[in-house]
Amino acid sequence: MSKVNVPYKMYLTEAEIPKTWYNVRADMKTKQAPLLNPGTLEPMTAADLAPVFCDELIAQELDNDTPFIEIPTEIRDFYKMYRPSPLIHAEYLEKVLGTPAHIYYKFEGNNTSGSHKLNSAIAQAYYAKKQGLKGVTTETGAGQWGTALSMACAYFGLDCKVFMVKVSYEQKPFRREVMRTYGAEVTPSPSMTTDIGKKILLAHPGTTGSLGCAISEAVEVAVKNPGYRYVLGSVLNQVLLHQSVIGMETKAACEKFGIKPDMIIGCAGGGSNLGGLISPFMGEKLRGEADYDIVAVEPASCPSFTRGKYVYDFCDTGMVCPLAKMYTLGHDFIPSANHAGGLRFHGMSPVLSQLYHDGYMRAVAVEQTSVFEAATTFARCEGILPAPESSHAIRAAIDEAMKCKETGEEKTIIFGLTGTGYFDMVAYEKFNDGTMTDFIPTDEDLAQGFASIPKANGEYIV
Amino acid sequence: MSKVNVPYKMYLTEAEIPKTWYNVRADMKTKQAPLLNPGTLEPMTAADLAPVFCDELIAQELDNDTPFIEIPTEIRDFYKMYRPSPLIHAEYLEKVLGTPAHIYYKFEGNNTSGSHKLNSAIAQAYYAKKQGLKGVTTETGAGQWGTALSMACAYFGLDCKVFMVKVSYEQKPFRREVMRTYGAEVTPSPSMTTDIGKKILLAHPGTTGSLGCAISEAVEVAVKNPGYRYVLGSVLNQVLLHQSVIGMETKAACEKFGIKPDMIIGCAGGGSNLGGLISPFMGEKLRGEADYDIVAVEPASCPSFTRGKYVYDFCDTGMVCPLAKMYTLGHDFIPSANHAGGLRFHGMSPVLSQLYHDGYMRAVAVEQTSVFEAATTFARCEGILPAPESSHAIRAAIDEAMKCKETGEEKTIIFGLTGTGYFDMVAYEKFNDGTMTDFIPTDEDLAQGFASIPKANGEYIV
Repeated sequence: MSKVNVPYKMYLTEAEIPKTWYNVRADMKTKQAPLLNPGTLEPMTAADLAPVFCDELIAQELDNDTPFIEIPTEIRDFYKMYRPSPLIHAEYLEKVLGTPAHIYYKFEGNNTSGSHKLNSAIAQAYYAKKQGLKGVTTETGAGQWGTALSMACAYFGLDCKVFMVKVSYEQKPFRREVMRTYGAEVTPSPSMTTDIGKKILLAHPGTTGSLGCAISEAVEVAVKNPGYRYVLGSVLNQVLLHQSVIGMETKAACEKFGIKPDMIIGCAGGGSNLGGLISPFMGEKLRGEADYDIVAVEPASCPSFTRGKYVYDFCDTGMVCPLAKMYTLGHDFIPSANHAGGLRFHGMSPVLSQLYHDGYMRAVAVEQTSVFEAATTFARCEGILPAPESSHAIRAAIDEAMKCKETGEEKTIIFGLTGTGYFDMVAYEKFNDGTMTDFIPTDEDLAQGFASIPKANGEYIV
Repeated sequence: MSKVNVPYKMYLTEAEIPKTWYNVRADMKTKQAPLLNPGTLEPMTAADLAPVFCDELIAQELDNDTPFIEIPTEIRDFYKMYRPSPLIHAEYLEKVLGTPAHIYYKFEGNNTSGSHKLNSAIAQAYYAKKQGLKGVTTETGAGQWGTALSMACAYFGLDCKVFMVKVSYEQKPFRREVMRTYGAEVTPSPSMTTDIGKKILLAHPGTTGSLGCAISEAVEVAVKNPGYRYVLGSVLNQVLLHQSVIGMETKAACEKFGIKPDMIIGCAGGGSNLGGLISPFMGEKLRGEADYDIVAVEPASCPSFTRGKYVYDFCDTGMVCPLAKMYTLGHDFIPSANHAGGLRFHGMSPVLSQLYHDGYMRAVAVEQTSVFEAATTFARCEGILPAPESSHAIRAAIDEAMKCKETGEEKTIIFGLTGTGYFDMVAYEKFNDGTMTDFIPTDEDLAQGFASIPKANGEYIV
């Protein structure tokens, strides 16, 4: 693609904030597999999900057909506080790399949660409020989702109970205070406040926690407290739907400013950012209207796509959630304490899993120190201090741009810069001090995780 | 003023980034008093300043006549990474307050330094690079200036040595790591690495430091190391000049979107943000073209304007800097450890001091807990988590808006939201826990500080 003359930061107007979300499932020929009731192995119905989730969110979760779903005015009102987010032409990075590639990034960090998580948090809080609920419970890893949900709940006057993965709670005490400033109650997970927390602590006394544990605790509290429901920041279909606002804006900006991407890159933990960013592009690809090289980037320490199995597994360590068919490392897989807390999940969005399985996207795994090298390079030339999670995408984008330097190709690369790293300075400190190490699970480590994947008649469930 | 129909976030285009800074001194009938050589009590010349400051910055410092000074392309290139910054219509805050007032804020926090400080940092780094220097030294309080300078130095490949006020260094370890990520060397002040640091530590072994101490150390290192100069983030005329980009953009946005402010409010530490924000409005006021109620907000714990003396004093505790005529609490005044590190300076910009003395602006002092109350209210409805410094302006803006609610006046209020509070969570934690207290110096405390103000023939120098 040839160079286009664009501003450094491309903003859409407030009137151009998308009026609908895009539901990529409507264009999938092979739909993602349904969630299963772990007892009966039957697909979960709306009635099954009702004790855990808000009604309207269940409808969105199960809707595989409607391509465009209207964004309520109340949510668009909130969106305009921090949206449209800019699509940025990384011209300073291009210069430093000396690459012929054209690099753009969609920056979702310009809000207090520091990430894209707010896009779904405000939607979920809105539907909870509309249903007349008292409050919501959730888990948070790096703290971005918890912060986002706290902000959303403060806006709508909802109570907010957050279970925060213990390793992040300890590494990021300031995150806890941001959530408290927005009125949330924050508990380190596993905790002694839930049955499942007690059980996990008994089995693994020294555990630093995982998203899977925290999910179990949050679900338990939601189910046991009248007027509460559980909300989740990733993995679910509804979350990818809400996050499609990222991709919709990105695509609108591409059209407005004449950018024709060849490649779209995003980091992948549970899949919310990646699924959101790629969705309208994936839609074109599914409909055969355009082709894009779509790349998921995951940590080598938690390689669901690149080394996981595509089978049914629990979304949570406590096995209180439904079974999802997804790329999984096993729900008992507890990744080494790497610093991209938001990517420490054993599974992956069922929608993205299906698309990956069907060859519509590919995945790469990158190591922690190389991620922080990329983050530092990026920070020094583009100004923004990226979150470790986002920096996985930076690493892959730089690698692709350097390939272009070798081949002379002028590829146009868009990557998702999901958030800022202001609360990740413990990790940056390790990198700055040269004491950061890489954690790559051995095949034996993986086998241990795989052993927790449920089976029926001795076989994985597929 | 009647309601105008504006977007929530008003952005100028990149082409509308100001091409010149505005030098308010050119329009002052009574100029600020010159800096004096403390030995001779003669005005400092360019030659006197040359060992400490970069040449072109000295020219800007001493230029009281040129109203518009061109912003070099290299600086405008950097500005576009985070400018134009948005002017935001605080419609959610208005609703929560139920005020007829129209509230707008110019938000300078959308960059990694988290504040407006980058506007002058990049200018000072540029002129240092242009002069062929190896590096620069500086002090930082809250850490925003140090971060900004680190970013600017990384961009131009300059070495950067930062002396960080000890209390902030301890309260904000993450700030240190941000600076290190951008390649800076960070030392807590007072330190044993300088003669003046050793002297201060000997006299006050338990001191938590102050901007005044840190300035002395940074100047000493600059003067003793060939190829280094000292740069300062506030107080100086040159800094107010660079920060005028805030006011220029604000004024341009007001004109573009039809906003007619009655009142302009900014927090005041050394004066950089306030001086920058108000400058073009003050220019109109000085030229008799318009009238505005211009309000400086300072912490009750460090009340230079409202309780200080307007006399010559040292800018730094170590008395290595020139004398400046300014509102001062005495260079030995060490304010109680309140959490708005950026406002803990004993003096005030000589330009703003003169304008205040001449009645062109007024000042209010506000207490810490009321500032955090305002910050929390603001965060919960407008989303942005404000820096404690900025929250002083929020406090005053809310107070003015509530007065309008009583009187029914539809005043249009603009305030400067200088930055974000992501690195201030220790302070927010105290507020959240209800353990924050207010510190108001007694008259005896102030008398102790005043005793350090130099005299000539038994009289203050004026």
